[in-house]
Amino acid sequence: MTNADYGVLSPAWAGGAAARLADDTAFVQAMLDVEAAWVRVQAGAGLCTAQQAAAVDAVARAERYDLAEVARRTPDGANALIPLLGMMRELLARDGAPGGTGTVLHRGATSQDIIDSALMLLLARGIKVVSTHLHAAGEGLAALARTYARTPCIARSLTQHALPTTFGYRAAAWLSALGSAGRALQELSNTLALQWGGAVGTLASLDQFLADQPRTHPDSAELVRRMAAELQLVDRQVPWHTNRVPLLQAGSALGTVIAALGTFGTDVLTASRPEIGELSEPREAGKGGSSAMPQKQNPVHSLLLRTAALSAPALVGTLFTAAGTAADERPDGAWHAEWPALRELLRLAVGSAEHADVLANGLRVNESALARNLALGGDAVLSERLATVLAPVIAGGKPAVQDLVRRSLTDQVSLRELLRLEVSHTDLSDAQLDELLDPAGYLGSAARFTDTVLADYALWKESWLSHN
Amino acid sequence: MTNADYGVLSPAWAGGAAARLADDTAFVQAMLDVEAAWVRVQAGAGLCTAQQAAAVDAVARAERYDLAEVARRTPDGANALIPLLGMMRELLARDGAPGGTGTVLHRGATSQDIIDSALMLLLARGIKVVSTHLHAAGEGLAALARTYARTPCIARSLTQHALPTTFGYRAAAWLSALGSAGRALQELSNTLALQWGGAVGTLASLDQFLADQPRTHPDSAELVRRMAAELQLVDRQVPWHTNRVPLLQAGSALGTVIAALGTFGTDVLTASRPEIGELSEPREAGKGGSSAMPQKQNPVHSLLLRTAALSAPALVGTLFTAAGTAADERPDGAWHAEWPALRELLRLAVGSAEHADVLANGLRVNESALARNLALGGDAVLSERLATVLAPVIAGGKPAVQDLVRRSLTDQVSLRELLRLEVSHTDLSDAQLDELLDPAGYLGSAARFTDTVLADYALWKESWLSHN
Amino acid sequence: MTNADYGVLSPAWAGGAAARLADDTAFVQAMLDVEAAWVRVQAGAGLCTAQQAAAVDAVARAERYDLAEVARRTPDGANALIPLLGMMRELLARDGAPGGTGTVLHRGATSQDIIDSALMLLLARGIKVVSTHLHAAGEGLAALARTYARTPCIARSLTQHALPTTFGYRAAAWLSALGSAGRALQELSNTLALQWGGAVGTLASLDQFLADQPRTHPDSAELVRRMAAELQLVDRQVPWHTNRVPLLQAGSALGTVIAALGTFGTDVLTASRPEIGELSEPREAGKGGSSAMPQKQNPVHSLLLRTAALSAPALVGTLFTAAGTAADERPDGAWHAEWPALRELLRLAVGSAEHADVLANGLRVNESALARNLALGGDAVLSERLATVLAPVIAGGKPAVQDLVRRSLTDQVSLRELLRLEVSHTDLSDAQLDELLDPAGYLGSAARFTDTVLADYALWKESWLSHN
Amino acid sequence: MTNADYGVLSPAWAGGAAARLADDTAFVQAMLDVEAAWVRVQAGAGLCTAQQAAAVDAVARAERYDLAEVARRTPDGANALIPLLGMMRELLARDGAPGGTGTVLHRGATSQDIIDSALMLLLARGIKVVSTHLHAAGEGLAALARTYARTPCIARSLTQHALPTTFGYRAAAWLSALGSAGRALQELSNTLALQWGGAVGTLASLDQFLADQPRTHPDSAELVRRMAAELQLVDRQVPWHTNRVPLLQAGSALGTVIAALGTFGTDVLTASRPEIGELSEPREAGKGGSSAMPQKQNPVHSLLLRTAALSAPALVGTLFTAAGTAADERPDGAWHAEWPALRELLRLAVGSAEHADVLANGLRVNESALARNLALGGDAVLSERLATVLAPVIAGGKPAVQDLVRRSLTDQVSLRELLRLEVSHTDLSDAQLDELLDPAGYLGSAARFTDTVLADYALWKESWLSHN
Repeated sequence: MTNADYGVLSPAWAGGAAARLADDTAFVQAMLDVEAAWVRVQAGAGLCTAQQAAAVDAVARAERYDLAEVARRTPDGANALIPLLGMMRELLARDGAPGGTGTVLHRGATSQDIIDSALMLLLARGIKVVSTHLHAAGEGLAALARTYARTPCIARSLTQHALPTTFGYRAAAWLSALGSAGRALQELSNTLALQWGGAVGTLASLDQFLADQPRTHPDSAELVRRMAAELQLVDRQVPWHTNRVPLLQAGSALGTVIAALGTFGTDVLTASRPEIGELSEPREAGKGGSSAMPQKQNPVHSLLLRTAALSAPALVGTLFTAAGTAADERPDGAWHAEWPALRELLRLAVGSAEHADVLANGLRVNESALARNLALGGDAVLSERLATVLAPVIAGGKPAVQDLVRRSLTDQVSLRELLRLEVSHTDLSDAQLDELLDPAGYLGSAARFTDTVLADYALWKESWLSHN
Repeated sequence: MTNADYGVLSPAWAGGAAARLADDTAFVQAMLDVEAAWVRVQAGAGLCTAQQAAAVDAVARAERYDLAEVARRTPDGANALIPLLGMMRELLARDGAPGGTGTVLHRGATSQDIIDSALMLLLARGIKVVSTHLHAAGEGLAALARTYARTPCIARSLTQHALPTTFGYRAAAWLSALGSAGRALQELSNTLALQWGGAVGTLASLDQFLADQPRTHPDSAELVRRMAAELQLVDRQVPWHTNRVPLLQAGSALGTVIAALGTFGTDVLTASRPEIGELSEPREAGKGGSSAMPQKQNPVHSLLLRTAALSAPALVGTLFTAAGTAADERPDGAWHAEWPALRELLRLAVGSAEHADVLANGLRVNESALARNLALGGDAVLSERLATVLAPVIAGGKPAVQDLVRRSLTDQVSLRELLRLEVSHTDLSDAQLDELLDPAGYLGSAARFTDTVLADYALWKESWLSHN
Repeated sequence: MTNADYGVLSPAWAGGAAARLADDTAFVQAMLDVEAAWVRVQAGAGLCTAQQAAAVDAVARAERYDLAEVARRTPDGANALIPLLGMMRELLARDGAPGGTGTVLHRGATSQDIIDSALMLLLARGIKVVSTHLHAAGEGLAALARTYARTPCIARSLTQHALPTTFGYRAAAWLSALGSAGRALQELSNTLALQWGGAVGTLASLDQFLADQPRTHPDSAELVRRMAAELQLVDRQVPWHTNRVPLLQAGSALGTVIAALGTFGTDVLTASRPEIGELSEPREAGKGGSSAMPQKQNPVHSLLLRTAALSAPALVGTLFTAAGTAADERPDGAWHAEWPALRELLRLAVGSAEHADVLANGLRVNESALARNLALGGDAVLSERLATVLAPVIAGGKPAVQDLVRRSLTDQVSLRELLRLEVSHTDLSDAQLDELLDPAGYLGSAARFTDTVLADYALWKESWLSHN
Repeated sequence: MTNADYGVLSPAWAGGAAARLADDTAFVQAMLDVEAAWVRVQAGAGLCTAQQAAAVDAVARAERYDLAEVARRTPDGANALIPLLGMMRELLARDGAPGGTGTVLHRGATSQDIIDSALMLLLARGIKVVSTHLHAAGEGLAALARTYARTPCIARSLTQHALPTTFGYRAAAWLSALGSAGRALQELSNTLALQWGGAVGTLASLDQFLADQPRTHPDSAELVRRMAAELQLVDRQVPWHTNRVPLLQAGSALGTVIAALGTFGTDVLTASRPEIGELSEPREAGKGGSSAMPQKQNPVHSLLLRTAALSAPALVGTLFTAAGTAADERPDGAWHAEWPALRELLRLAVGSAEHADVLANGLRVNESALARNLALGGDAVLSERLATVLAPVIAGGKPAVQDLVRRSLTDQVSLRELLRLEVSHTDLSDAQLDELLDPAGYLGSAARFTDTVLADYALWKESWLSHN
């Protein structure tokens, strides 16, 4: 039996697009795509024949390789490209490829060129899916922000009830974080660059080959430009093999998406607690159930967002450790440690974006629970307001108001009644007191901030749509 | 095509025992082993029939399941056991299992019981392999320590030459770290415990079932004891589902093995640099070669040790984060984040132990390079000794000696000659000076320390052999 | 003004024993203690005079040094011992110390000997305080476990209500984790070892000095033995400068304490949420208040446990990264990165143990909230039990029971009534149904497990008391 | 004695600007700056008097506070602002501040507003220093890249010799990474934003106060705009208290700087090894010396770069963990865990930039060692070139050439001689062979890439200068 992983231990991304976008097959395919693109570029420049390019294209299909065998031979040279290249050449021979195709293949390249560029392809493909789901999730959150823009609820600080806010503003806060993360990811996706430099980043072998060509041809700078275009990657005009900043930026951007959605998931988990009950996940057939306890509906989407948020930071850290300890023109381990970390971050980001999409678009809001929890602490929730407003008209000022609040809590007496005893009707009519004790009247700029977030989001959405 | 990983991006453990010991098949098999053991325990206690147990045994074979499908359904309930259990019941039906087998299966258990215990089985199986390779590597290092116990070489501090040591003592230092890590792993392996507590750790469902039994039978404490024995795990007599310390200790012990071997790998990498050339990896067919540069022999085993050492710390950290943020009787994400981290640590430990074994037993020592590098700094390498010994007989004492050392370096003059000018033959004969400048005479307690490490190792080896 | 930190950004340990036990003064004092002990050992062996030892003792007081100046000069040689040693010698001169004291001081030692050993002293001192508070916290938790051993409450899984448990068992679960972590720390404290090896771990300089002595004297092995005894550290009989496993074990043990208490803090935070209200922190004057909102009482102790639990894992990871990448007889950065990480872990462990002590001994349990929350889901919380018990007497068996549970939830009908309609009085009397629906009757082995944890704790307590 | 840290355990930043820019005094000053700015803004808007603002300015000086006392009281409310605010009010009273100043102070603000904004001020101030040193370091590296643009040396891959490159190109690679990191930091510094939202981010208290004002005045949006301008921070127009992406981006950018410089440090450390000897650190009085071994010159600047690179990744990870697990309108620990991590990252970045500056501008290049190491592997270093060029004119093609290379290594025979035997003078004259074996002729596009990096750097430098 082949030794393989399918995602059984990775619920945060299993069963979704990540499994397809970033599994070993996808990575091998990306390496094959890079190798094949290079031969096509050579053919386009008259440096090999169209037949040779076609022959390489024909072997550049991941399904033609035994990936378990590739994996088995990976430690021999510490990377997968070395055995894959050997197997490509065997296949070319078996296919009866034109003479010299083996020489054309991988000409002047080094394994790092292929692996780093293949990782960039994986990122490019994965980030598209992440972005699509982020935008869909954003739509869901924006709808929540709009719908509940005037629905008061309790805001919590250090787990305790603090002051009123609106549920729409809370949704806007999730959207704000999602937008910040999404924008950064979009910027990142415009910088994913081809790595092409040969054994030590000088292109010496390619330049030597070109110098020996009898006929005119594009120079290596032009060939690399065409190669980048072929793969829809950026041409940085200088190899980045020893500059791992692009990788750190990719890892940070992915980690940021996961963290931003982790906050969303964490808040939904809290609000899903039966005692709080403000939110519940969409009920979907077969999701979140417990075989033993039919009454139990587990908040799986938000739980998986949190799972990803707990797993990702360490992987981000590994990328920084690898970059900061990298040595020489190709490092002795620091390069190799990047691969699984970066791939897993991509998977977690894809999985998180998918779950956030479902969650944001199916979240069920329990308005009566919002109201119930807001009322839970009684009038004391407005103590800040009372202290500000009543200080001038109460003997003892602000501290006196705060004493009343404390007394009302200790003695379980209505704060309204205590206030009524202390403040004359001249200074404060009953109607004024009612108004003062209405949480909906103490929402400050919540509506304005919600609108600002929505407007920011609309701008980003527009810019994204115009690029996709 | 099935989405799967084979280790293509994980050279540190791909192609070795880890692929077999801890892949999804191995984990699913471990879950099946736990479920089957529980039914056998019930049968042994007269709580179900032997036929039912046999029927469950027959479906408890991982190859009967489509693991890609298990993975696909994993996010629905956020763990793999839920879909697996459903598929087991389908298979039982298809097999025509005796009536009631579906009820006997998983009786009173919860998914955490199965998953946590299955992870312990994976650890138990994996740690055996790690230990075997650690001991084999230890043998290799012990041989090096003995063989080169009197071979002087330069010791380095902060990359610079410091004082003479012996290569045997350096090997003993690697052995010492390996031994510390190996002992801790051995102790850990004696504590791997069954988790068995039902939905919330009270065994309520099992106890209810037992209370309703018409005939006498063992109590739940006795059943759990038998269950632990069946799986060769420890019975802690209380569920540990909310106590993640056992997992932290497992992760730390595995991480410690990887780190200890990382130091070994790092030192071999340094010594393999062509300019240093003191060590080289065993030449094995097909290993470490470069397709483009036939003169290049890459130190792949030590490189992969270092790769693992760079990857593992973050995974250890994830286990601590998960444990420290775990909530309730089963946490909302913190539990789920443990799985891939712990599994990957096990794989890296297995891979590291395998590579260390090959490396320690095939390491080629270049004695002439050891001597050449020791001589590189000239007599200055003994400046500490000279300052100590000659201070009493030289005008100006210790600082004067240090000045001579500096002068010898700056002016590129022989330190021996400078000393000869300053110290009378009465105070120091030529023969005494020669002796004083012999690095082999300034090795302190290196030999004693080497012996101590070897003796410690022998004790540990013996204790291990007596248990295996 | 001197640049210094006082803990303003570190609420998790500021204001407690950690500030005193592990600040720069404490570390410098520990280095001075090591230097002074070594001179006393020499004096005891007749290798220097008692006057010299007394002179060194007199300068071995941290308050005699300008630590800001020590810090300022620390980067020059990348460690603090180098400038400190210079300042010690200046003080000796200023004090008119006997001739030769400067030579006796630090004889044969290297900065790593002093720094590594000083860190061990810091650990030894800190761990004592951690242990004391862990035991005090353990007492508090044990009292809770005993007091509430029969108080039913809801157990939660993935944030949702699962089954009944007892609050005493929940407290026992915290105690169980605390005990596992505490035992490991106790074992660790018995292994903290002196590091003594000279520049490269051979003791060459010391051995040379001893060889040159005219009179008989103890050998270096004996001197190191006495040195370890003087500092109450273990003598490993071989330097551990290149074997960082002891440090990894220290870091892991400290991290484990912090994580175990993090779970406790997390659970208290959840239970302190106003909507849940099962627990509240001890009300202490001036603690947890909010200046603006007098009604707000923040759960600061548990919050700080969680803060520590979020901060510690990365520091543990740094120790593993450093160990795994360490090179040579003294590494070029990997050693230096250990210091702040280890020190901060110690501080967080001290701070966590202190806060856990206050929390466990002052936790206020709201029994009515426990009862209210348990009742919140109605009879459905016992659906697992009902399915097990009623399956034989209801048409349709277990699935039928589960359907009734679902119906009761959807239609908001009493589950008791639905059951009464389906099951005959013959099969189930009203009294039997009442009993079946009593959560206190479905606690399984909770009481036994609680007792087991208490007994384990008592054993550990006893073993600790007998050693302290 | 006051418990305090001075940097004794933190050589990577001790003794430099970081000690001053980010110690507790600096942080407290930043908090005071925020509080004072807010009162000035109020005064400017006619909401309080100029005298009140002056009174607050007078107490807004960190030296007036006992920071040890602030730290001691920090855990009471889990942050330092609460006690500081109390002490400010005491000082105002003691100073005889105008009536009502205590009310004006902190009006409508919450501790998170002050702490988050103060951290942004710390970042803004710190990043300026980092940038200045990065640019100075960049100048040094650019000079190296230009000076040695045509100096061949060996490029290394996986520790082994690979192909020739130039030392200028290696310096350009360091510059390239430094530039990528520096640009990102510069972009970040333009986004550092004020946090201003009141207790739960709604500005309710401020809006209430403004609504109650008898006279016209700016609205809260305008006041916040002025406040941001006063502190030279960005006004995001919406509070970011629950959106931690800005903090993740700051942490990542700082970590990226540290990692980029870590690579530089690592390469210098390798090249400083006596056996390699290509580079050495600037000799500065009192730096890098060893008291016991005068011949030893430790590469302290690069060692400290590496120390920082090993320490920073975990801190970056902590920020991601905190962000991803943050709950509610203010999180219960996740917020508090950010502070020490972010501050330490800033310090490490400042320290790294300082050390990189000294190192890049004082690095001593040993050209003869570059030449010696390049020649070390003999002609085999050009085997890739030989295989490419000679394949057409040698029987057996490329594999035959590679066989010759291997034979030359195994038999220690000159590759030149072996080639001369196999290739006719017609196909390859002696002069042509000489040329073929000249490493300086096989540098590919190294010069072009070096120029590209230098041009990129010049652009960035210019843009930076125009903004500073």
